[in-house]
Amino acid sequence: MSETEHPADAGVTEVSELDEDDRLKPEFVRAVLDAVEDGDVERARDLVEPLHPADIADLFELTGHEDRASLAHALSGLVDGDVFAEMNDYVREDLIDALEPQEVADLAAELDTDDAVAIIEDMDAADQREVLRAMEPDDRAAIEEALSYPEESAGRLMQRELIAVPEHWSVGDAIDYLRHNEDLTTDFWEIFVVDSRHKPVGTCQLSWILRTPRGIAIADVMKREQTLIPVDMDQEEVALRFQKYALISAAVTDASGRLVGMITVDDVVHIIQEEAGEDALLLSGAGDGDINEPIRDSYTARVRWLIANLGTALVAATIITMFEGTISKMVALAALMPIVAGVGGNAGTQTMAVTVRALATNQLTRSNTWRTIRREIAVAMMNGLTVAVVIGTAVGLFYANPLLGAVIATAMLGNIILAGLSGVVVPLTLERLKLDPAVASSIFVTMMTDSMGFLVFLGLASASGLVG
Amino acid sequence: MSETEHPADAGVTEVSELDEDDRLKPEFVRAVLDAVEDGDVERARDLVEPLHPADIADLFELTGHEDRASLAHALSGLVDGDVFAEMNDYVREDLIDALEPQEVADLAAELDTDDAVAIIEDMDAADQREVLRAMEPDDRAAIEEALSYPEESAGRLMQRELIAVPEHWSVGDAIDYLRHNEDLTTDFWEIFVVDSRHKPVGTCQLSWILRTPRGIAIADVMKREQTLIPVDMDQEEVALRFQKYALISAAVTDASGRLVGMITVDDVVHIIQEEAGEDALLLSGAGDGDINEPIRDSYTARVRWLIANLGTALVAATIITMFEGTISKMVALAALMPIVAGVGGNAGTQTMAVTVRALATNQLTRSNTWRTIRREIAVAMMNGLTVAVVIGTAVGLFYANPLLGAVIATAMLGNIILAGLSGVVVPLTLERLKLDPAVASSIFVTMMTDSMGFLVFLGLASASGLVG
Repeated sequence: MSETEHPADAGVTEVSELDEDDRLKPEFVRAVLDAVEDGDVERARDLVEPLHPADIADLFELTGHEDRASLAHALSGLVDGDVFAEMNDYVREDLIDALEPQEVADLAAELDTDDAVAIIEDMDAADQREVLRAMEPDDRAAIEEALSYPEESAGRLMQRELIAVPEHWSVGDAIDYLRHNEDLTTDFWEIFVVDSRHKPVGTCQLSWILRTPRGIAIADVMKREQTLIPVDMDQEEVALRFQKYALISAAVTDASGRLVGMITVDDVVHIIQEEAGEDALLLSGAGDGDINEPIRDSYTARVRWLIANLGTALVAATIITMFEGTISKMVALAALMPIVAGVGGNAGTQTMAVTVRALATNQLTRSNTWRTIRREIAVAMMNGLTVAVVIGTAVGLFYANPLLGAVIATAMLGNIILAGLSGVVVPLTLERLKLDPAVASSIFVTMMTDSMGFLVFLGLASASGLVG
Repeated sequence: MSETEHPADAGVTEVSELDEDDRLKPEFVRAVLDAVEDGDVERARDLVEPLHPADIADLFELTGHEDRASLAHALSGLVDGDVFAEMNDYVREDLIDALEPQEVADLAAELDTDDAVAIIEDMDAADQREVLRAMEPDDRAAIEEALSYPEESAGRLMQRELIAVPEHWSVGDAIDYLRHNEDLTTDFWEIFVVDSRHKPVGTCQLSWILRTPRGIAIADVMKREQTLIPVDMDQEEVALRFQKYALISAAVTDASGRLVGMITVDDVVHIIQEEAGEDALLLSGAGDGDINEPIRDSYTARVRWLIANLGTALVAATIITMFEGTISKMVALAALMPIVAGVGGNAGTQTMAVTVRALATNQLTRSNTWRTIRREIAVAMMNGLTVAVVIGTAVGLFYANPLLGAVIATAMLGNIILAGLSGVVVPLTLERLKLDPAVASSIFVTMMTDSMGFLVFLGLASASGLVG
């Protein structure tokens, strides 16, 4: 990668620990773990000290379950709240389990509400109570309130630390307020302007404040059209809004419209990535699909799906059984039938992946449903014709049996069109029923393309007088 | 959705145009298009005027290809550069094609470099030259320089409009500079501190500037550890850095380390979403998988994949053909063999989806490759045992043939373990060969699970003395 030639590419940590893709080098990870194993805590700490919190978090993720506790012990003090906030959920749970409630409380106290909540929300109820008891009353109240909102809602995601100023202030008032109040948060990108009932009336980017003379009223600088996030909004919806309106931060309001928190884009980026990336996992039935997930959880999630898949395969087998007489007269049919089912299944998966993605990104709505269905059928017909001609010709020639070629070509065309239709209609129907189209679509679509593939091919073979 | 109860949820545009998921209502889209069709331009403009640029862009995406030009004509003036910047690539190309070079040049001139480049980069060379000729020399030079960087690189993504200050300035100097220079950009979140050769030496959040007394040196406020983005870095890598280090903006440097531009998180969010979401599309061979893509392009991308799939299906068919003698003696085998192949294929897809995701997010590196392979084999063995017991018992009882049950159970166990192994090893190998694991993995894994499924099942049936 040519970027390594740049002296400027040193980035956050020194070049030697990170490879060209900004990942910790295996040699570095090995060196740290060797030092820990040898009891050379000093050396381990020297190695890890210069790392960015995100890289220390990665170090734990790259370390096996069995070595994490001793690594954490050796690095105590370096593994602060920021490191925990950056850590993979499963790895974090693993480590948190090894800590005393007081230690967890100390870590959480360093963090903004949203990061503290992320650490505490996955603990079991008894541990949670103990940690909360060990916290300062103020922090505790903030976290308890956050935990009172539903999981994966804006209320869990927001931080309560924000800057809100009254609408009658001038720019100068706001600057003085920021300068003279030591204990305000330092990480903010916009300030929120509120009315006397603490309802947001506008947002003001810091750059505008810096570019405006002190005497101007803040109400004349702020942007009045704002995207407000209701505190119970689902995090996926929050992520879509941030993306659509290119937000850096947004005000969170309670049921009565009062400002209760702020969400910043850096907390949303993880969600955008997770929500967009989970389609592939959900479509395959791999559950959370995290390589740090405990093996038992991965097994439970995946085997359930395989058993469901076994069910649809049995339906297909039953259809084949109905045609055992036909197959026994012409065994070549047995060799050819999986082709019709398999390629059809693949065509269905393509359409399904496209539809699920378009639904997830709000590109496919009621306004363009019919256009999209017509479009997918058109693509399916073109695909079906092409594949049918190829397979029909090949089979017809190979078996020197034009009728067999015609039968498999017709079955293939029919199955690919059916695959296209079900690949778009099944996810749309599930979405309309308020179910997640990524979760259940592929079972239905596969069942359709498998069963119908066998049925149409064997049915045509039988009806066309091809056999006996 | 309870969020609609909130008066505060009015968001960016008025409630009436958007549904509860923040998408334009079909009735609204219909009303605008009806007005355009009736020649009632006034009414169409009144309806669209209050919309956020992102929603105007959505309006075009939800409108069919055939109506877009007349819509654009009716809304001319309202469809500004911001709207184009928010628009889906295919829809934008569609519209840009309908405009005169001078109109495109005027649109591009309103925008930051990155957005202007996004509009111009997809035009064909002749149109691009014409548009560039119609631009102001300054804008033109900026765009031509951006276009000189590789597609999908940081150079294309960055804007040249940024704030850079010398390291010897005080906070007060920086504030005065911002206040007194009218033509500086207004959209920035951090300022970059540079040395005398214009190399970045630190970054300073605006909140720190606002919270610090004017007399303090900027060098004492800024953060020295910064994540610098080399101008030729691939956008996927840029997105991963923004995510890993929770960046709001980052300095882009050229080969000699000089500051040449800035990337802000709102431009990266789209990439994070696209890159994370494309796994499902690539794994299924659906290409770009955009519902706005021209039908011909969708056909070309998908049919190529289906033909490749047909090839792997033919390999499987050849294996079946080798066992035609066995099948003709026991036709039930023909009904059962797709079960072994199908469930195995599904298990392979699960492991593959997990592996591809872990590779894309830099969670799976050389440091934990072996641990991950061992993990996936363990999960595959547990899945395989479970499914084997279920199918073995069912088949043994249904056919009253314990040996048949044992054969299918053994084949299933073997195929699921093989699926798990290839599901993790194939993507890892492709990644090591610098190929995109999402693009090619599933062809190999499917071929493996299909062919081996048939081979192991029919081979065992034949070798076990089950038939004849």
